Amino acid sequence: MGQDNFTAQKRSSGGLPTSTTGTSNGRAAAGRGYAALPRGRQIQKTFNNIKITILCGFVTILVLRGTIGVGNLGSSDADAVNQNLIEETNRILAEIRSDSDPNDPDEFINGTQINPNVTYTLGPKIANWDAERRAWLQSNPEFPSLVRGKPRVLLVTGSPPKPCDNPIGDHYLLKAIKNKIDYCRLHGIEIVYNLAHLDMELAGYWAKLPLIRKLMLSHPEVEWIWWMDSDAMFTDMVFEIPLAKYDKHNLVIHGYPDLLFDQKSWIALNTGSFLFRNCQWSLDLLDVWAPMGPKGPIREEAGKILTANLKGRPAFEADDQSALIYLLLSQKDQWMEKVFVENSYYLHGYWAGLVDRYEEMIEKYHPGLGDERWPFVTHFVGCKPCGSYGDYPVERCLSSMERAFNFADNQVLKLYGFRHRGLLSPKIKRIRNETATPLESVDQFDIRRHPMQGSS
Amino acid sequence: MGQDNFTAQKRSSGGLPTSTTGTSNGRAAAGRGYAALPRGRQIQKTFNNIKITILCGFVTILVLRGTIGVGNLGSSDADAVNQNLIEETNRILAEIRSDSDPNDPDEFINGTQINPNVTYTLGPKIANWDAERRAWLQSNPEFPSLVRGKPRVLLVTGSPPKPCDNPIGDHYLLKAIKNKIDYCRLHGIEIVYNLAHLDMELAGYWAKLPLIRKLMLSHPEVEWIWWMDSDAMFTDMVFEIPLAKYDKHNLVIHGYPDLLFDQKSWIALNTGSFLFRNCQWSLDLLDVWAPMGPKGPIREEAGKILTANLKGRPAFEADDQSALIYLLLSQKDQWMEKVFVENSYYLHGYWAGLVDRYEEMIEKYHPGLGDERWPFVTHFVGCKPCGSYGDYPVERCLSSMERAFNFADNQVLKLYGFRHRGLLSPKIKRIRNETATPLESVDQFDIRRHPMQGSS
Repeated sequence: MGQDNFTAQKRSSGGLPTSTTGTSNGRAAAGRGYAALPRGRQIQKTFNNIKITILCGFVTILVLRGTIGVGNLGSSDADAVNQNLIEETNRILAEIRSDSDPNDPDEFINGTQINPNVTYTLGPKIANWDAERRAWLQSNPEFPSLVRGKPRVLLVTGSPPKPCDNPIGDHYLLKAIKNKIDYCRLHGIEIVYNLAHLDMELAGYWAKLPLIRKLMLSHPEVEWIWWMDSDAMFTDMVFEIPLAKYDKHNLVIHGYPDLLFDQKSWIALNTGSFLFRNCQWSLDLLDVWAPMGPKGPIREEAGKILTANLKGRPAFEADDQSALIYLLLSQKDQWMEKVFVENSYYLHGYWAGLVDRYEEMIEKYHPGLGDERWPFVTHFVGCKPCGSYGDYPVERCLSSMERAFNFADNQVLKLYGFRHRGLLSPKIKRIRNETATPLESVDQFDIRRHPMQGSS
Repeated sequence: MGQDNFTAQKRSSGGLPTSTTGTSNGRAAAGRGYAALPRGRQIQKTFNNIKITILCGFVTILVLRGTIGVGNLGSSDADAVNQNLIEETNRILAEIRSDSDPNDPDEFINGTQINPNVTYTLGPKIANWDAERRAWLQSNPEFPSLVRGKPRVLLVTGSPPKPCDNPIGDHYLLKAIKNKIDYCRLHGIEIVYNLAHLDMELAGYWAKLPLIRKLMLSHPEVEWIWWMDSDAMFTDMVFEIPLAKYDKHNLVIHGYPDLLFDQKSWIALNTGSFLFRNCQWSLDLLDVWAPMGPKGPIREEAGKILTANLKGRPAFEADDQSALIYLLLSQKDQWMEKVFVENSYYLHGYWAGLVDRYEEMIEKYHPGLGDERWPFVTHFVGCKPCGSYGDYPVERCLSSMERAFNFADNQVLKLYGFRHRGLLSPKIKRIRNETATPLESVDQFDIRRHPMQGSS
């Protein structure tokens, strides 16, 4: 889900130096394997052929050996077991991955077919949510929307229901959710991790819309729904969102007003990490936001409108981010009063400009700042670790994600007296000796006693 | 971490019919690839040889094609990109996996070398924890050990710092933590997910000991530390542990007193899911439990003692479960008064006997029972999804874990009006139409309003 956001994202960043490099590297690297065959020296070719032919002969001999029944190599047993494991795993993988299910009657009601003449809706119109929610809260005092004076926040993230095309992707999804579990435990935030497609029409980066609506309606006690892409990590474990600052607003999103209104740039805002207040206004915004999303002709056509109206947007199907920007531009008077475009800290931080500066940050600053000195969130736009085709070299993405995770994890491990050996190392080392008076460390290092809020 | 527990576990279950089948299947399956060659019909063989030879010829032709430079297939470009991605990924994987770091001075202080003459300790002796903790709680009223009348519980789980040997393993680690996130959100339990080796000496299934101790000392506000293996899933999302029942106890673990004291069986208790009260008694138990754990000669020697004294235990290095059983048997008077051996519900439930009965349970019973009618926890003992060698066929393990996850997920999705198409399907379908009055569903289906506790 988060990953799907990338394709859109990266194209945008094509303008930035870092990503241009990244992209060109990507192409170059991608090109190499293929370019080798036509060009390259003839001798090389001949050699390869000989090699292959010999290999073939060898294989045949091996098989014959088996038939004639010459004694087996000691290793062949283990090899066979291994082989067998691999085959079984692949079989399961295929089974779990296989998506289309033509005989399934639900395929249709889940709406893979859609009628372009009917405007798509997220569900029956809900008109009186604020009053209904207020009444519910009054009659359910055991589920208050304020906990110890703080509005209740639900962090929502998710990833595709099936294993990643690129297996290492699942490992980084695991690290990314571990990172979110840590931040949310430290700051009293609940988590919903979605692994399902609630709505087949709004697949990919649009899937967050029906999900957010569903969660608002199913968790009336929650004041703010905070969407975060699966490829975004908390890199400042101390920083806290200054919610009081947004008392008069219903949508908080990272971006730049000048890029939005002066340049109409399609990267003026980023939908990788944003907060929605649980209220009628948000439901209304989702209702007008969603109709560009249904996959197929509608999303294709909408894409053309967005590309025609947003600066720097390449031609491709409508994405949720462009659609929101277009909506806020075209219906500015109706919505902007309640939208807070935040850039005083990194509610979303573009990774390419940050991951190489962690050492510098550690040297000069400290957690709790949340801005370019110590980014609150590092978002791996364009990396697609779970998909097969990102916009940056896989190598750069993976090592950068590893660095971001360990940079954040060091802040968590400090309470326990450990840190990673290096920002690229999964291994940890002690930074304090065990003591007989552990509570001193708790009073000193427990992040929960020293939360730092952004300037209100 | 959780996975490492398996090898020990499964051997035990060798006696149970299910696992015997499982194991024999495993062997059979493993054998097949290798056994096929010598036996099998000769014609079959000849056919294979011909096939292989043809294949070889084909490959050679393909390569020649490339050399002669006949136009490239359209796919070759994508293939090259794919190839390149795979290579880069593997390089990173190797980098991240590479463990030994001889030049690292920390290698030593982290204690990979150990002195068998010095008894291993988890850290400086802590003698007065109960009083210190009480004092801390009094001076930190903002971190109460009771929240809304319930003792504060911290669920602890974890997995190895590095990607799984078997890539699909990471996907199931992700599903297993999503499952725990759901249960813990519904029942107000905090989660710590450990991805680090705190102590190189206590690697593998022993790693939970230093981790639990560290967490007790770093989270004085937590009353119960609940360890759960990464391969255990909540399959009853409604059931709640009857903590009041354990007011007089400090360790709650699933098991059978007769197996423990009459038979001295090494599977009398299961350390895949148990609760420790945060108190001096627990620290003391950890101190006497740990010395059998240091890897190398100590663990090897201890293993012999355990095998000699515990019924059914095969000969292998000391594991944490056998060590605990041995300890409670040999020092019964000192410890058992505070140990609650629970089997009125499945604090740990052995998967092989449960996963095939889910349909029957759905038909006859309902969540909230927690026992054989609707198991609270389903634990995939012996599956080792993250390692390469489990004790059951990978296929059986993966599909069983998929079934357990979806069985549990259906209970979570009910609030949102969905369920999985089948217990093996990651895809979901609606079970209710969207309504304009969503709060009715909340009042009806929110698990938090209807928690069911085990009989106190």
